[in-house]
Amino acid sequence: MRLATLRNEIADGQLVMVSRDGARCLLAPSPSLIQAIEHWADIEPALRSIAARIDAGEGEALDPALLRAPLPRSWQWLDGSAFSTHGELMQIAFNLPPVESDRPLMYQGISDRFYGPNDPIPFPDEADGIDFEGEFGVIVDAVPMGVSPEEALGHIKLVVQINDWSLRAIAPVEMKTGFGWVQAKPACSMAPFAVTPDELGDAWRSGRVCMDLHVDCNGKAFGRANGSAMDFGFHDLVAHAARTRDLVAGTIIGSGTVSNPNYAEVGSSCISEVRAIEIIRDGHPSTPFMRHGDTVRMEGLDLNGSAPFGIIEQSVAIGIPATGQPAEHGKWSAG
Amino acid sequence: MRLATLRNEIADGQLVMVSRDGARCLLAPSPSLIQAIEHWADIEPALRSIAARIDAGEGEALDPALLRAPLPRSWQWLDGSAFSTHGELMQIAFNLPPVESDRPLMYQGISDRFYGPNDPIPFPDEADGIDFEGEFGVIVDAVPMGVSPEEALGHIKLVVQINDWSLRAIAPVEMKTGFGWVQAKPACSMAPFAVTPDELGDAWRSGRVCMDLHVDCNGKAFGRANGSAMDFGFHDLVAHAARTRDLVAGTIIGSGTVSNPNYAEVGSSCISEVRAIEIIRDGHPSTPFMRHGDTVRMEGLDLNGSAPFGIIEQSVAIGIPATGQPAEHGKWSAG
Repeated sequence: MRLATLRNEIADGQLVMVSRDGARCLLAPSPSLIQAIEHWADIEPALRSIAARIDAGEGEALDPALLRAPLPRSWQWLDGSAFSTHGELMQIAFNLPPVESDRPLMYQGISDRFYGPNDPIPFPDEADGIDFEGEFGVIVDAVPMGVSPEEALGHIKLVVQINDWSLRAIAPVEMKTGFGWVQAKPACSMAPFAVTPDELGDAWRSGRVCMDLHVDCNGKAFGRANGSAMDFGFHDLVAHAARTRDLVAGTIIGSGTVSNPNYAEVGSSCISEVRAIEIIRDGHPSTPFMRHGDTVRMEGLDLNGSAPFGIIEQSVAIGIPATGQPAEHGKWSAG
Repeated sequence: MRLATLRNEIADGQLVMVSRDGARCLLAPSPSLIQAIEHWADIEPALRSIAARIDAGEGEALDPALLRAPLPRSWQWLDGSAFSTHGELMQIAFNLPPVESDRPLMYQGISDRFYGPNDPIPFPDEADGIDFEGEFGVIVDAVPMGVSPEEALGHIKLVVQINDWSLRAIAPVEMKTGFGWVQAKPACSMAPFAVTPDELGDAWRSGRVCMDLHVDCNGKAFGRANGSAMDFGFHDLVAHAARTRDLVAGTIIGSGTVSNPNYAEVGSSCISEVRAIEIIRDGHPSTPFMRHGDTVRMEGLDLNGSAPFGIIEQSVAIGIPATGQPAEHGKWSAG
C-alpha cells in the first residue's frame, strides 16, 4: 500500500491512498496519517480494501501540486547514522576524532514539520554550509519500552524516503559539545509516498531498504548508494530508541545518510562526503555547499526501475519564508 | 494567570484556570493548552477575564488527583544547560573533558509526553543510574526563524517547572558520540501550574526565574539553588533555538539543572552534582542514584514563600507501566 497526504485546511492534511504509478488516489478511511498510525491494527483492513479498489482501476487523478510530506508533522523524529562509511567520511570532513560506539548512533531532531517533496526550503544564510542527506526511514505504531529487535520489526508499519537538511558550518561546533544538533539540523523533507514494507517486495530485507538512492544535484548525477549497507537494521534502531522510552505512534526513525564503501563507484548522498573524499585525494575540498536556487533530486529505485516513494525535487531558498509547512497548526483535524 | 490541565478522555486534557492558592478552577475558553498557545494573542483577553473572575472568588474545587502536566505533550522540547556550575560538576561526575562552547548548550528531547506532578515514573532498570534534574522552563507561541533575544522575550507566554529525568550510566556514553542523548533522557515531569511571566512579579527578571528551587529527596532537603544564576536568559535560549528554524507554538525551552556556585551552602538540584562534589572532597562518590520507591519533591518558592508552579512530588517505579501519560493519543481534541 502506498499513502500520501494532500494539502487542505488542516494542519495534518488529508490522507489518500495512491496507485502504483502515482497517478490516481482515493480518500483514506482516516483523515490524516498520524491518526491512521495511532489505530493501525484497526484501520489496516479498510486501507487494504481501498488499495484493492485502486489496483482495480478506481480513483481520481492525483494533483502533484497538492502533495505534502506523507506525515507532515509527528511527535518524534529520531535519526540514526547506520552507514559506517558516512561516519568515517564525516570525521574527515569535520576534522573530528573517531566516534567511539558499538551501539547505534541516534539523535532527536525537529518533528513539528516535514517539508513536502517539492517545497522550496528556507535557510537563513548560505554561509551555514547548506547540505542535503539522502536517507530512508520508517514509521512505527506505538512501541513499548524494552521491545526486542525481533518484536520491533512488526511495529514498522511504513517506509519513507527523507532528505535530512544539514548545516555543515554549525554541525561540528554543536557535535563537540556532546549535546547533538539543534541549529545544524533544520526540518527535513519527505518523498511523497509512505509505503508498507510489503509494497517494497524483495527490496525490504533484514529491516533494510535494499534499493539504490539516486541523488542528483543541479541536474547532475551525484550518488547511487544502496540502502542495504546499514550496520544496524531499522528494527535494531527501533529497539535502541525504545530502550528507556515507549515510542509514541507515528515516531519516525531515520537510517542516516545512505553511504557505501565503494563510494568511488557509486558516489554519495550528501555534499559533505564528497568534500571528505576530495580532502583525502587533493588535500582540500572543492565541491561547494548549496546556494540560493540550487536544486537536489532524490529517488530510490528498485531493481525494476520503479520508485515506490516517488521523488524529492526541491530548491534552496535563502531568506524566503517557508511554504508548504503546516503553518495552520491551530486547525486540528477533528478525529 | 495560572493554568493547569485536568485528566479527561482527550490526549491533550482539559485546560483550566486556577486560583492563586491552587484550590479553585474554572474551565478555560480553549479545550487544551496546546490550542491556547497556538492562538495566544486572540485568546489572552478571554483568559484574563476568567482569571479576574477567579480572583473575585469564583470557581469549583480543583481535584489534585486530576492534575496532569499543564502541557501533557508538545511538538518540541529543547533543553538548555545554562547554569555553568552544573556543567563544571558534570564534567567531574562523568570524567569528561570541558565542553568548549561560548554559545548556549541545547539538545532536543522527547516531547510526546510530559508526566504529571504526581505520576510514578517508569524506568526499566535501577542500574541505569536514575537521577532527577530540577529546572525551570518557558513555553513560547510561534517564533519566527532569526528572532533576536529582545524579540524572543515577548514570545515567552508561560513559565513552568520541570523535572528532567536522566539516566547517568548512559549519559556519558551517548555524550561521547556527539549525537546528544536519546536513551539517557526519558520523558520529563512538570509541576502542575503553568504561569504567565507577570504572575511571577519581581521573580521574573532578565528572562530568568529568580526563585529558589526547593528539592527534597526521600523526605530530606537536597537543594535550594536559585534560578537567577543562568549564564543566558530564556530569551537568549529562545533566540539560539530559532537561529535556523521557526519554533512551533508550544515549544518548551528548559534552563538545564538549576545550580549555583555556592553549592556547599545551597545544595544541588540533581544527584549527579552531589556525587561530583563528593568526588572532589573524598575522591569517590557516595550518594546513590534513585531506586524503586524513592521519591523526589520539587517546589520553586518566591520571597513571599508562595509556590506559583505548585509541587512535583513523585516516585520511581521500576518495571511498572506508566500511568498518567497521554496514552489515548488517538483521541484528538476537536478544536
